[in-house]
Amino acid sequence: MNVPSSPTDRPSVPAAAPDVFTVGGYIIDRLRANGVGHVFGIPGDYVLGLYKLLEESPIRLVGMTREDSAGFAADAYARIKGLGCVCVTYCVGGLSTCNSIAGAFAEKSPVIVLSGSPGMGERARNPLLHHKVKGFDTQFEVFRNITAASAVLDRPETAFAEIDRVFEAALRYKRPVYLELPRDQTHASQVGPHRPTEGLPPSDPDALREAIDEAAALLSAARRPVILADVEIHRFRLQDRLIALAESTGMPIATTILGKSVISEAHPQFAGIYEGALGRPEVTELVESADCLLMLGCFLTDINLGIFTAKLDPSRCIDATSEDLRIRHHHYRDVRLDDFLEGLIRRDLKPARTPVPRRTSPFEAAEATPESAVTSSLLFARLNALLARHREVTVIADVGDSLFGAADLEIHRQTEFLSPAYYTSMGFSVPAAVGAGMAGPSTRTLVIVGDGAFQMTGMELSTIARHGLNPIVVVLNNHGYTTERFLLEGSFNDVHGWAYHKIPEVLGVGMGVEVRTVGELERALEAAWSNADSFSLLNVHLDPYDRSPALERLASRLSRIVDNRGR
Amino acid sequence: MNVPSSPTDRPSVPAAAPDVFTVGGYIIDRLRANGVGHVFGIPGDYVLGLYKLLEESPIRLVGMTREDSAGFAADAYARIKGLGCVCVTYCVGGLSTCNSIAGAFAEKSPVIVLSGSPGMGERARNPLLHHKVKGFDTQFEVFRNITAASAVLDRPETAFAEIDRVFEAALRYKRPVYLELPRDQTHASQVGPHRPTEGLPPSDPDALREAIDEAAALLSAARRPVILADVEIHRFRLQDRLIALAESTGMPIATTILGKSVISEAHPQFAGIYEGALGRPEVTELVESADCLLMLGCFLTDINLGIFTAKLDPSRCIDATSEDLRIRHHHYRDVRLDDFLEGLIRRDLKPARTPVPRRTSPFEAAEATPESAVTSSLLFARLNALLARHREVTVIADVGDSLFGAADLEIHRQTEFLSPAYYTSMGFSVPAAVGAGMAGPSTRTLVIVGDGAFQMTGMELSTIARHGLNPIVVVLNNHGYTTERFLLEGSFNDVHGWAYHKIPEVLGVGMGVEVRTVGELERALEAAWSNADSFSLLNVHLDPYDRSPALERLASRLSRIVDNRGR
Repeated sequence: MNVPSSPTDRPSVPAAAPDVFTVGGYIIDRLRANGVGHVFGIPGDYVLGLYKLLEESPIRLVGMTREDSAGFAADAYARIKGLGCVCVTYCVGGLSTCNSIAGAFAEKSPVIVLSGSPGMGERARNPLLHHKVKGFDTQFEVFRNITAASAVLDRPETAFAEIDRVFEAALRYKRPVYLELPRDQTHASQVGPHRPTEGLPPSDPDALREAIDEAAALLSAARRPVILADVEIHRFRLQDRLIALAESTGMPIATTILGKSVISEAHPQFAGIYEGALGRPEVTELVESADCLLMLGCFLTDINLGIFTAKLDPSRCIDATSEDLRIRHHHYRDVRLDDFLEGLIRRDLKPARTPVPRRTSPFEAAEATPESAVTSSLLFARLNALLARHREVTVIADVGDSLFGAADLEIHRQTEFLSPAYYTSMGFSVPAAVGAGMAGPSTRTLVIVGDGAFQMTGMELSTIARHGLNPIVVVLNNHGYTTERFLLEGSFNDVHGWAYHKIPEVLGVGMGVEVRTVGELERALEAAWSNADSFSLLNVHLDPYDRSPALERLASRLSRIVDNRGR
Repeated sequence: MNVPSSPTDRPSVPAAAPDVFTVGGYIIDRLRANGVGHVFGIPGDYVLGLYKLLEESPIRLVGMTREDSAGFAADAYARIKGLGCVCVTYCVGGLSTCNSIAGAFAEKSPVIVLSGSPGMGERARNPLLHHKVKGFDTQFEVFRNITAASAVLDRPETAFAEIDRVFEAALRYKRPVYLELPRDQTHASQVGPHRPTEGLPPSDPDALREAIDEAAALLSAARRPVILADVEIHRFRLQDRLIALAESTGMPIATTILGKSVISEAHPQFAGIYEGALGRPEVTELVESADCLLMLGCFLTDINLGIFTAKLDPSRCIDATSEDLRIRHHHYRDVRLDDFLEGLIRRDLKPARTPVPRRTSPFEAAEATPESAVTSSLLFARLNALLARHREVTVIADVGDSLFGAADLEIHRQTEFLSPAYYTSMGFSVPAAVGAGMAGPSTRTLVIVGDGAFQMTGMELSTIARHGLNPIVVVLNNHGYTTERFLLEGSFNDVHGWAYHKIPEVLGVGMGVEVRTVGELERALEAAWSNADSFSLLNVHLDPYDRSPALERLASRLSRIVDNRGR
């Protein structure tokens, strides 16, 4: 909704001279300096001036159908490029991104939330300007709860330093941050010289040395040392250093679901995904029998820990994250994850060799004829075969059996698996494909999404169509929230059936295919791979009670503990 | 995403005896006692226990495709029935409703936000349970900013009184409220006798008497007294009392856009919509020349005030709302709007008669042949004619030209016009049609929605299809955010074109028609009216720069003040 409120919207200063920034211009400069080439969002009158500046800049504006989708796209973009940005209008725009930004916070994805707001000049006497909720600070107060830093750029005297502070927090903590730009400040010029702050605080050198000494001693004394790597390795772009450490020490590496693909799953030292009792037994055995477990960038979430079935004895753990370094039961402060990792590599440790267990495949047993009805197990087996043939694929898994099933897929490159595996918000995947498409257009994107999640945000295919992106979108059409069916049955788990494969007719772009048998699936996957010009959507019919091998393992545990009046 | 975390989910108490409530059971009891027959939402594991209770109760669960849509539906339901409820899971669900609940707050719609959350037993040691953001209180802290009252029902000793307190706030302030139910508390039984609190605080009798005396004296002495009625008349269900006062005093009534339809626009004393300089001149003249303006339940928003072009002299105003009573420049505390209105009626005042101006129609000039291309002006004229023929229609207008154009329509009954006219969040209308359909299935619903807004939430037609509702949905297909085009041109105002009329093929239900000419429009409206069995969708092609008569009036003012570097 777009209604300016008073003539004070006009900038009070003339257009900036080339080497004097405006506040809006400085934000754009900082985005570009940090590698942001695309900004996702929807315009609105409180942010139109900034949109115009963005349109005139080298940054590409990517309009989405909804702001929360723009948040998901910016999150996926940030995971790949290191920083993302969503730009929205006040409240109706910003508050619509709360869930996707909360997800970015929970899973450590650095997204700049850039919101317009009423001009400072028009706020006098606290009038009821459109989009306002309780007070002018409502949106700011909301975002304080779901971002690592936030600022309202209400005067040019402080705006430039505030922009630096907020950007630094995004980069340091790999979390979303919030910048609110009152519209009459967009063109306000800097009032004095300003130099951007660069770099992050260094480690405490003494703590760092002592921590490395202790860790090196533990690893050297261990008989079965193992590395467990998680999402922060990805976020801090330490994948190469992880491999360097693994290869110099010979230690096997397991990852978690959230950290899936921080190392190529074809690497000889990769052992598999650790999920406590829910995972494959050889990986559980490897990790839990380690007498020194080097945890790098791990998030100890319920899902990563296999719904708390993990058995990790802290006495045998070195647990290094960006926020804390814990060795056994004590903590070191101000030791950066990258410095710690680098220090271990430089020690050139040669601990005892823990053998990498032979990997089993959950897909081996699946046998079928072309006339067989598709099952989740058969579907994921075919997708796994597709990934084996084509290695330049980014896999985006939505929540539910899309995620559990996809966890078993073999991912061959780094940063190729995106999923909201901890925050687990349905509807992430299709918007994320927009962000992934903009961030790395050279790889192909495979989206795996349940029908419930697709109904939330799947029409973001509109943006995919508009920009000529070519993801392959596999909809697991099982008529509802299947994971929930295994927890507590009720008609509330059903969704209305859509002819998903007909959506290309609505959008005027794309290829849609309906799939019921294995033969149809194989032909559809082949056709989709050949269709490089537009998105392909596979409407894969599944039995409502069918489930992937992973969900099978999960369900057998879950059925015992769900809240169901003890039934 | 659905993963229970520990065996503590199991209720620690047996199923409640018939006259001993559980916490979940008491919430359902209070909803029913306040007329809530439908709850909107999406299930998730933290709220599954409550969903089961709801399914077993007489309340009907209405599953939506997205939580924010569920919020809009509950908002529309609350506007019609007096109270609404959205029931969602923790964070991924609740935080997805922030925008729609903020809109309900801004426009005074009492929606109960009912969210599940991790059980108290599983929160020990602050583990990283799925869906958690910063801490377990993140969602509660967010909602404190956009609700009138909030509580986490973390123990049965206080839960029952907290439920009463929060319900009372919703009913008293007509604002949304927040109740969070940790899943292990769902089946917790009350620990002592509990009697629900009933009724709201009374007025201060002395302040009430003095205020009525003063208002009566001012009205009696006035030569041109006029009533300006707004949204609170609707929210507090005072429409009949407003008419009683108007008919006994003979005063003309104007309303605002937000308050549109608080009185039948066919009533002989109805003068029109007041919008400052943007409105029709005869209404502006009537209101601004009044020497005593009795403002009842008014929200002085920028849009209601015609972007602050209104000229209302406080020295001549009596301004009564649920939150304040101001006469000229002083305030009375603790005077309820209903008591004040009732007191004025009882005085049986006979002030001077202000003539009701003859109403002009903005639609009269529109002439066209069946081959003429449809314009906004012609479209709204045809819709106005439809409303004149069929009086049992609820009109739901989305934001932008849908709202501005619809403001000129003549609404013949009370409570028949729903629109987010102050908060102006795009995407309200189609989900709201679900809420309206459940609240009052006897009337027909007409939805007027722009293409940008439709792309946000229009696929909620899925829920409309599932439940056999039959709204007529008119999509103003002008390829973008047209209102913004008049503020600041840029390609960011364009949206991807959809063949909206083909959506019924995706959903398997509904009638879709493509409309380009006046003849096609008339046939389509007739066919839609006859189609009582499913929704009808009219894809009405409009020129991207075409606009309604109301937007024409608005745009001529807006073009002078928008933030555009002074261009």
